[in-house]
Order: sequence, then C-alpha cells, then structure tokens
Amino acid sequence: MKVDGKPYRTIWLREGDDRVVQVIDQLRLPHAFEIAELISVADMCRAIKNMTVRGAGLIGASAGFGMYLAALEAPEQDFHDFMRQAAADLKATRPTAANLAWAVERMLAAIAVGTTPAQKRRLARDAAVALADEDAEHFRHLGEHGMALIADIARRKPGKPVNILTHCNAGWLAFVDFGSATAPIYAAHEAGIPVHVWVDETRPRNQGASLTAWELGQHGVPHTLITDNAGGHLMQHGLVDMVITGADRVTRSGDVANKIGTYLKALAARDNGIPMYVALPSSTFDFSLGDGVASIPIEERGAEEVRFISGKASHGGIESVQICPDTTPARNWGFDVTPARLVTKLICERGICDANEAAIFALFPQEK
Amino acid sequence: MKVDGKPYRTIWLREGDDRVVQVIDQLRLPHAFEIAELISVADMCRAIKNMTVRGAGLIGASAGFGMYLAALEAPEQDFHDFMRQAAADLKATRPTAANLAWAVERMLAAIAVGTTPAQKRRLARDAAVALADEDAEHFRHLGEHGMALIADIARRKPGKPVNILTHCNAGWLAFVDFGSATAPIYAAHEAGIPVHVWVDETRPRNQGASLTAWELGQHGVPHTLITDNAGGHLMQHGLVDMVITGADRVTRSGDVANKIGTYLKALAARDNGIPMYVALPSSTFDFSLGDGVASIPIEERGAEEVRFISGKASHGGIESVQICPDTTPARNWGFDVTPARLVTKLICERGICDANEAAIFALFPQEK
Repeated sequence: MKVDGKPYRTIWLREGDDRVVQVIDQLRLPHAFEIAELISVADMCRAIKNMTVRGAGLIGASAGFGMYLAALEAPEQDFHDFMRQAAADLKATRPTAANLAWAVERMLAAIAVGTTPAQKRRLARDAAVALADEDAEHFRHLGEHGMALIADIARRKPGKPVNILTHCNAGWLAFVDFGSATAPIYAAHEAGIPVHVWVDETRPRNQGASLTAWELGQHGVPHTLITDNAGGHLMQHGLVDMVITGADRVTRSGDVANKIGTYLKALAARDNGIPMYVALPSSTFDFSLGDGVASIPIEERGAEEVRFISGKASHGGIESVQICPDTTPARNWGFDVTPARLVTKLICERGICDANEAAIFALFPQEK
Repeated sequence: MKVDGKPYRTIWLREGDDRVVQVIDQLRLPHAFEIAELISVADMCRAIKNMTVRGAGLIGASAGFGMYLAALEAPEQDFHDFMRQAAADLKATRPTAANLAWAVERMLAAIAVGTTPAQKRRLARDAAVALADEDAEHFRHLGEHGMALIADIARRKPGKPVNILTHCNAGWLAFVDFGSATAPIYAAHEAGIPVHVWVDETRPRNQGASLTAWELGQHGVPHTLITDNAGGHLMQHGLVDMVITGADRVTRSGDVANKIGTYLKALAARDNGIPMYVALPSSTFDFSLGDGVASIPIEERGAEEVRFISGKASHGGIESVQICPDTTPARNWGFDVTPARLVTKLICERGICDANEAAIFALFPQEK
C-alpha cells in the first residue's frame, strides 16, 4: 500500500543489491517512517524479537528472508550446520508465532533440493521472495471477497460512505501487503466505493491509534480515531455499517480469538443488528480446537503495558507516562474470544463462509 | 474515606478558621495529594471551572460553600447585589452540571430568611455545611442498600472475594464522601466482606486509572487496574461477580446515561449472566425523559482528549503524549446510554428498584 504516495510492502530486497533485506521499522511508527536494512540472520532475529517487524504474516515472510540471509552467510564447508542453527535461532525469536516455524520449515525444504551452496542460495532467494509474494496474493484475494460485502452496503446508501469499525491493527503492516481486516477496505477504496473507518485505539498497546490510523492515513482512506469505549454508542446511533476485525486464532467451530476487546464490539454489533466480519488467512484456523472460550489459551502480558502509555512528548521524543498511582496493581490479558454465534461471516482468501463447523469444513474439505 | 490512613471528605471548612474552605486538589491526583484553600467566591468559581473540584455531588457542595464565601465577602451596603452576582458566576462555571444551579438556588433561599448581613452569613455557613452533610448522608444510605447485594454474593462464595467491576470514577472523589458506585463497596469492605474491584481505566480521561484506583488504594480496598477492553474476557471466565457503575442521567424508564463504554460492559454482563447495577442519587433521575437512547443529549468533547494521554513522565513531572500520527482525526463522545433492559437494578439512597417506569415511580411516587 502507499506511504506518502509511493507503493510499499513491509519487507523487500533492496533494489540493485539483493543481498540486503529492507523493512519498514515499525518501532518508529507512527511518529517516524524509516527503512531498516538487514544483512545477516542475526539482524533478522533481532528485528523479529524487538518488533521492528511484527504481525503474523510479516513474521512468516521475515523468517523466509532470514533464512535467505543465512544462506548468503553460510560458509561452504559448514553450510548445513549453519542453516540448522539459523533455523533454530529464527524459531526461538517469537515462540508462539505459528507462521515462524512454518516459514522456516518451508525454506529448509526448498533449500534441500539444491546440491551446491551456490544453488541453495539461489533457491533460498527464490523461496523467500515466493513466500512474501504468496502472502500478498492471499490478501489480495481476501480483499476482493470482502469488498463484495462492502459494495452490498454501498448500494443501499448511494453517495454516502460505508462506515466500517475495526479493532487493533490487522492491516498491511502486520503482513506483507493489503492486511487482513483492511484488505476489503483498501480494495473498496481502490474501486471507488466511498468508505470511512472508525479506528479503535486498542489499549493497551494502541496499535489502532499508532498503526491502523497511520496506514489508512498514508494510503488516503478516510478514517477517525476513537477510544475503545466509543463503538457501542456509534452503533446505537447508526454510525457503523459493519465491523471487520482480524483474528489470531479461529477454531473449527468458528470461535475467534483476537485482540482483547473484540468480543465487546461483537456484542454491540449483535445488539444493534450490525454485521460482524472476521478476516483471516487459512493459516489462522486451528482445526484441532472446538469451543474457543474453553480451549484457546489467552496470553497474559506484563502489567506495565496497562500502567504506562507511550507517545510523542512535547519535546518531540517518545516518552512513556504512568497513568495510575505508583502502587496500583494491573493485569493485562492480550486477547479475548468472540463466540461464533456473534460472528456474521468469516472472510478468507478462499472465500467467505459462515462461522460454524459445517461451513468451515465445506471451505476446507481437506481438513475434515 | 481514608487517605494515607486519615479520614477525609472532598470539601470542608478549615479547622480553627471557618472562613477558609479546603478541598482536595483533584488536578494533582493521583500523582500528588494536595489540599487547596479557597477564600473567595472567585477562588471557588476557578476551582470548579478548572476541575480542581469535579463530580456531580462535589460540584453541588462546592457551589454551596462558594455562596458561603460570597456571603463573607459581600459588603454590608451591597449584600444583595453581590450575592446575586456570585450566584450567576457560580452557575456559569459548568453550565451542564444540574447540581450547581440546584445548590445555588437552595443557598439563596436559605439566606433569604435572614434580615441582617451578619445573620445571612451565619445562615449561609449552616446551609453550606448542611448541604455537604446531606450529600454524604445520602451516599451512606445508598451504600447500605447496595452492600446487601454484595453480601448476597459473598454468602454464595464463602472465603472468596466478591469481584466487582466498575467503570470511570463514581467514587467519593466525585461527591462529598462514600461515592455512588463505590458506596456499596466501601460499606462491604468496612463490614468485613471481602471484595476485589476491577477498575476500568476509562479512556479517554482515565478517571478509573487516576481517581478510582487512587481512592480504593488509599482506603485499602483490594483492586486491579485493567484496560476498558478487558471486562468481557474477565466475565467469560467467571472473574466478575457483579458490575456497579454510577450514572450521569437516568430516564423514568430506567435508561442510563453514563461514561462512554458503560453500555459495552452492560452487554457483556448480560451475555454472561452477571448482574449490572447502577448506583445514583435521586437527583440524577430525569423524570421528563423516556427513551434514553433517543432523547438524552450526548456531549461531544474535544478530539485532543483522544489523541493525547497525560501521565507522570520519567522526569517525575506530568507530560501529555500524542498516541497517533500528527494528522489523524479523532472524535470523542463523553457518554453512552445503557438501555434499561440491560440494567439489573438501580441503587438509590431511598432503596433499590428495577429499571422500569413502574418500579421507579413506586420509589418516587411524588414524581408521577
């Protein structure tokens, strides 16, 4: 998508020197737009660990390019051992990110076909590029499927923007391009359908305020930042036509684990007869799980994320401020589960389906 | 309630010199506890306007003491005119605060009985003190009524704390003492019933994180700060036994306008079979209104409250940080309306009633 009028992905090979991987430095967003350069697998491990790159799809693509950088570095005589160590190092950066291990294994399989280190390096380059291209292509398809839902609403209110509420950042910054929740929005915007996005700030880490607002603004999509508390009021007053969020894990019965607070928006959508859509790549399904509330483990993160908020201070630098008394205890669950009964449709790269086991297996018959 | 082990109200006459009004400087909370002294009606107008004192009950009591300070200042020859001007000035400080005009009128009526300025000054002092005492007394009663609901739950889980979720600050800091939502909690705590409070931070102004967390901490009530997004997840997992909030306006049919986000918590409570209580003084009812969603005007406040958050910076001072890009637009509604169908009971100083017209008029027959 566009940044300051110019098309970007979140990760790519440097033009003119494909031994260098370039990424958008997401630690600097939204207050600065900077490109970081990575020239070794150690660089990539650091970038994943410190969240210079973050988001399910982008972590997978980063692991792919990380393995490519490792192949460039690997000494001829110890090529195999070096790559095995690189694979282990990459997998250890964010142990709960499912895409990470998947991408590393795929790279190892792609490289295994080669016979010489030189050949393996070329294979690694091609496989890493293919992995990123594939991620982008998935979300282009997802966007087209989802755009049809937005177009339906647009036809019912000609000349007026379709108001879409989203939570957290399931945007292109979390993937290689397009994003999950944002892919239908970008597709509609490109097709000339007027859209307006209500962006939940998404406490505690404020990915809505800092990332979603930034990427929509850069691409020119009309949007408005709101507090996480505001969505219900907007829905009661006809100011929301649909909700679209991403997902971190979806069970075979259609229960959706996503950023904490998603469940509250789904309840408000249901109470006001507003459709609640969840956009996700196929890889986000966990077909082994049924009841999501009972079975999806919810990560509890550090209390300091609740007690402090960071942003741009008056002196222009980034400052973290404490919002409560020194001794106030806090707790911080990262996700909640929206039961399938509150989800109108799931939007995948393969198509759209109802949030129930029969419909999900109809779309993914091989998983049954 | 207690601050650092010592009982306080939010407003009182200085010991040994009753020509001085003392208040807790709420602008400095939670990062500093300071007492401000007010010696003129101009001082009091400034304190109300800049929110040194805030909250429905406290604003009413402040207006009472403001009229008393005016009576001390008023010159013998122009006593009447001076008091009329003081009344107008006080009313203009926060024009939407209903308690303000009510308290000023009550003070004027009390003073009118006197014949000499000296007599009027004594009457003003007594009326201001009575007004504050009455506010405290109301909430002591409300607390006793509400405590019975907490005690009911405590009996069903012996030895375990009753987990209560609250939103915003409907605490003693918003009144003279006890608070509305917090009165039943303090009463239960004093009675030895184990309670634990989940404190919503309450974006955008974070009154939960800064005020509710502070007052519960000072009084020694166990509590935990959470983001506004977290409540639904807690309720799904049995970690909330009841919700208690305050109210800014309640219609005769029981619809509740309260701090933005209250409606989302009420939906989650309903979805999980958890009682949702609203605590309010009688003066919060607006018997002229029926359907709250359609008829209660919702104040829209400045976007900067959403775009910036303030807190204690690393250098120890208070800093405001920007959480979104420079150009991100934001909107900021202050309240939402929770329909009566989601409210389990209303808790008033007169007693407890269902949230419907028949039950409300049974408690307030004179309003029918």
